[in-house]
Amino acid sequence: MPDAFSWKCLARSASGAARAGCLTTPHGDIQTPAFIPVGTKATVKGVRPETLRELGVELVLANTYHLALRPGADTVRELGGLHAMMGWDGPILTDSGGFQVFSLAGLRRVTDDGITFRNHIDGAEMTLSPESAMAAENDLGADIIMALDVCPPYPAPRSDVEEAVRRTLLWAERCRAAHKRSDQALWPIVQGGVERDLRQLCAERLVAMDFPAYAIGGVSVGEGHEHLKEVVGWTAPLLPVDRPRYLMGVGELRDIVVSVAAGVDLFDCVLPTRNGRNGCAYTAAGMIRLKNEVYKTDLRPIEEDCDCPTCRRFSRGTLRHLAMADEMLAPILLSIHNLRFYTRIFEGLRRAIRDGQFAAYVQGLLDRYYQND
Amino acid sequence: MPDAFSWKCLARSASGAARAGCLTTPHGDIQTPAFIPVGTKATVKGVRPETLRELGVELVLANTYHLALRPGADTVRELGGLHAMMGWDGPILTDSGGFQVFSLAGLRRVTDDGITFRNHIDGAEMTLSPESAMAAENDLGADIIMALDVCPPYPAPRSDVEEAVRRTLLWAERCRAAHKRSDQALWPIVQGGVERDLRQLCAERLVAMDFPAYAIGGVSVGEGHEHLKEVVGWTAPLLPVDRPRYLMGVGELRDIVVSVAAGVDLFDCVLPTRNGRNGCAYTAAGMIRLKNEVYKTDLRPIEEDCDCPTCRRFSRGTLRHLAMADEMLAPILLSIHNLRFYTRIFEGLRRAIRDGQFAAYVQGLLDRYYQND
Repeated sequence: MPDAFSWKCLARSASGAARAGCLTTPHGDIQTPAFIPVGTKATVKGVRPETLRELGVELVLANTYHLALRPGADTVRELGGLHAMMGWDGPILTDSGGFQVFSLAGLRRVTDDGITFRNHIDGAEMTLSPESAMAAENDLGADIIMALDVCPPYPAPRSDVEEAVRRTLLWAERCRAAHKRSDQALWPIVQGGVERDLRQLCAERLVAMDFPAYAIGGVSVGEGHEHLKEVVGWTAPLLPVDRPRYLMGVGELRDIVVSVAAGVDLFDCVLPTRNGRNGCAYTAAGMIRLKNEVYKTDLRPIEEDCDCPTCRRFSRGTLRHLAMADEMLAPILLSIHNLRFYTRIFEGLRRAIRDGQFAAYVQGLLDRYYQND
Repeated sequence: MPDAFSWKCLARSASGAARAGCLTTPHGDIQTPAFIPVGTKATVKGVRPETLRELGVELVLANTYHLALRPGADTVRELGGLHAMMGWDGPILTDSGGFQVFSLAGLRRVTDDGITFRNHIDGAEMTLSPESAMAAENDLGADIIMALDVCPPYPAPRSDVEEAVRRTLLWAERCRAAHKRSDQALWPIVQGGVERDLRQLCAERLVAMDFPAYAIGGVSVGEGHEHLKEVVGWTAPLLPVDRPRYLMGVGELRDIVVSVAAGVDLFDCVLPTRNGRNGCAYTAAGMIRLKNEVYKTDLRPIEEDCDCPTCRRFSRGTLRHLAMADEMLAPILLSIHNLRFYTRIFEGLRRAIRDGQFAAYVQGLLDRYYQND
């Protein structure tokens, strides 16, 4: 890991796998376990960067695929890179674009060279290779950049998963060779679907390449909580205990909790902002749909004990009105609350690990959140 | 005027008509001349109340027509009134709903009793009378509430304007009789179209009723700058020099400036936020359309010397990207800048009046803003 990057373990849970730590990057520190809000097109939808900071956000994700299409990675570079563009001087992570090509683009052809596809905006044919992904991520200028991987769907035939692992390993090497900037850390992604031996193979080979951190990808593609728990349970222990572990695209509370328990440090997910845009607000007792008639004259904030700017000023009744009236302030205020809900959960997880209360904290959290399931 | 309300003149321009003053309300003071952002449905679109405060906003307008339809004035009351609902503890002004009924609703029938119409949401037949307007505005709970008036279109036959003035006067009396709250100031509206004698009649009769302040309505309905200048020039001098004057719905810079010169103190307009939502940003040298290709890699802020949160963090290039990508952050950031543009103009107008530099300031402002006209 370059000098500007390090991860230090500060505490472990009683069982030993969950850890609290501090990840250092050129743009500042991230206390782990941490939640990473998604800023797909160089903005966390509806939330200004000053507000993200207030909410306790320390790391933001942006999507290379979307930014490479519009405004173009070269334009982002000309605009001073992602930090300048986003008005965010804290740490940023970019994915490689691989996941989006597999989930959004059309007419894909994957070879050992890369992925040829038609983009989802104007249908133009484009190619994404380890080299072009690195060039784009170097232009974007995030602190942490992800290697290009192949993410098979779920379910997929075993032979497809084998091929995905083979190419993911091949491309991790080529990404490292192509990566040009020492002020960016390159993290590879463990694939392997729900096949234990393939996850193991992929993890061991990547670990042998000695990267500064490791991500687990290809979960949260519809395989469900039990499979996710299994995959993370197999994979996390194979990754070096002294380096950060990042579970990509996972944001359901029960998934987060079992993964932190297995030793995962970082999570990104669109759920808090997407749910906010859909009129849903997180509470410790589960999610509420503010358009529900029952909130019409509800004078309570979303959560009585929440310290976010939304809960300090607005009642559920007002938020319902704003959502019903299709006012922009509704998604703004709900995204703000939901992000704070997530950062508070993670503050709680870190505190519980430090205080030796991890198991009890997690149990209380899940019992209350899923009480109506 | 109830005790909690007063307006004090602090300075006059050299010519004597423009004035700088301070309007006191139960929820705080407003330095005049002032710009009033429009918060139609209990929110200035896309801008949080904390941010309005930062931008120098001191008074916000909300629309009785929209709020009476949704969520209902009684629901607003149950939610603690507009101040609680909007998360804004500063002064609020509500219009009576008359203007919206004339501009948005269908199948109107106006009698001396009131206006029967079909609302623009579900087409239900409703009636707005001086009494029902007051009941709604009492429920909403703004500091300043406007009397129900009849606002004729432009152009309109003289007989229609005469009828509008007659009913506006009749309804001003009935509004006063129906108005129940001493913590709200009731302001009437001078109508009269572009007919000088009708403006004079309306102004004199309303002044004889001794209201604490007076609005000028029915301008900015398409009559153009020269007519507006004439109407304001006739009407403002007829209104008591020791009371505030409010020109409703006017926000074009040249209209504001001639009206302040004629002794108007307050202006509301949707332009800064509406233009912001349409990708347009105000600058001292005129408005710019950020979607224009020329801004693609423009690293400058919208305005170099602007102190708003948008200009402090975001380049024109980034704002163009956000607007092109239809990201919510674009209308948010542009509305913020545009509101600050307006509050800065008004800070400049107040300073110029106090410093005896009004004419020179106004000339410089207009020469630069309209340089490309």
